[in-house]
Amino acid sequence: MVKQERALRTRRAVLEAAAHVIGSRGYQAATMAEITQRAGVTKGAVYFHFTSKTALARAVVTEQIAPFLPQASDSRLQDAIDFTHQVALALRSDPLLQAGTRIAVETTFSEDPLMPYQAWTDIITTMFTEARANGELLSAVVPERAAEFFVAAYMGVQLFSRAASDRADLPHRVTALWKHTLPGLASPGVLSHLDPQGRRVKLAV
Amino acid sequence: MVKQERALRTRRAVLEAAAHVIGSRGYQAATMAEITQRAGVTKGAVYFHFTSKTALARAVVTEQIAPFLPQASDSRLQDAIDFTHQVALALRSDPLLQAGTRIAVETTFSEDPLMPYQAWTDIITTMFTEARANGELLSAVVPERAAEFFVAAYMGVQLFSRAASDRADLPHRVTALWKHTLPGLASPGVLSHLDPQGRRVKLAV
Repeated sequence: MVKQERALRTRRAVLEAAAHVIGSRGYQAATMAEITQRAGVTKGAVYFHFTSKTALARAVVTEQIAPFLPQASDSRLQDAIDFTHQVALALRSDPLLQAGTRIAVETTFSEDPLMPYQAWTDIITTMFTEARANGELLSAVVPERAAEFFVAAYMGVQLFSRAASDRADLPHRVTALWKHTLPGLASPGVLSHLDPQGRRVKLAV
Repeated sequence: MVKQERALRTRRAVLEAAAHVIGSRGYQAATMAEITQRAGVTKGAVYFHFTSKTALARAVVTEQIAPFLPQASDSRLQDAIDFTHQVALALRSDPLLQAGTRIAVETTFSEDPLMPYQAWTDIITTMFTEARANGELLSAVVPERAAEFFVAAYMGVQLFSRAASDRADLPHRVTALWKHTLPGLASPGVLSHLDPQGRRVKLAV
């Protein structure tokens, strides 16, 4: 049990070191050697958890989402809105999420992209599919296609905000994203009850 | 006159060499030396046109849009749709446009981002502002905010398509982008007359 705990702590240290190195140098330039050194663990310990830089990158990209998943409420569209606002707030300070974005974008241009958008698309597809079952969606909307569109747009909004304001205006841009897309997603009766700013995340401005 | 022509040809050769080198190595790893060598010109000739890698990058990012600007028709919203489809088609094969995207994305994470989205935002803002004057927009839409949202979303859709299909599905994803956003942009009477696939660019599928 203690052994397992230590293994988890090592794994976490490697992920955090990877986030730091990738965040400062970019994914292509980051090396396993530097990540190992920064994590303060042995090379064997790193490779026990991650067999390659790609495996490590995949973990950084996919494992950081779980803490932000909301419990299902009576509106899955509102849950999706809230979820994206929670992530937006965290993105401003969480090195792991920030590194995940950078990996996603850099591997987009490689021969074998990690397809980093998949985990996000799966989550949003599930939410939209449940929203459909609740009668929240317009009849023309196909949940999986809408989710792919939304995840792509969200990625673009994140990058725009990073370039424009180092992410300071990200919550506002996520609100604008929902304001512009909800009329094409939500059935009219539902639309007026949704809060594009998110329920639990009121902007402190 | 002949001298000026030669200068323009040199400038073009440098831009194309830059696109090739950046396309294969990425922006951070590309060097002025390699670009100069590939262009087959002297170092002095390169620096006559571009005083730094940043200046060269700025030219690659901003100057490739002009050929795709449509003439104004009676629907500026449809013009915007057509414009984005023309760019999408060209993105699948034009090294300069592809390098522009890569520079945009990589400099997003630098201390001093090029703010590469600005030229696109200006173009779309103009189109949306004229669409407003034509009565094509919903009253709640603010042209400049809508343009910023749209440009960000378009960037994300491009990246998603690059990762998912090496841009093969980009025209379809641009159509989906418009289908999802037009209900939040266009006034109802206009909406039914717009073709989200673009007028001059029918998909050959």
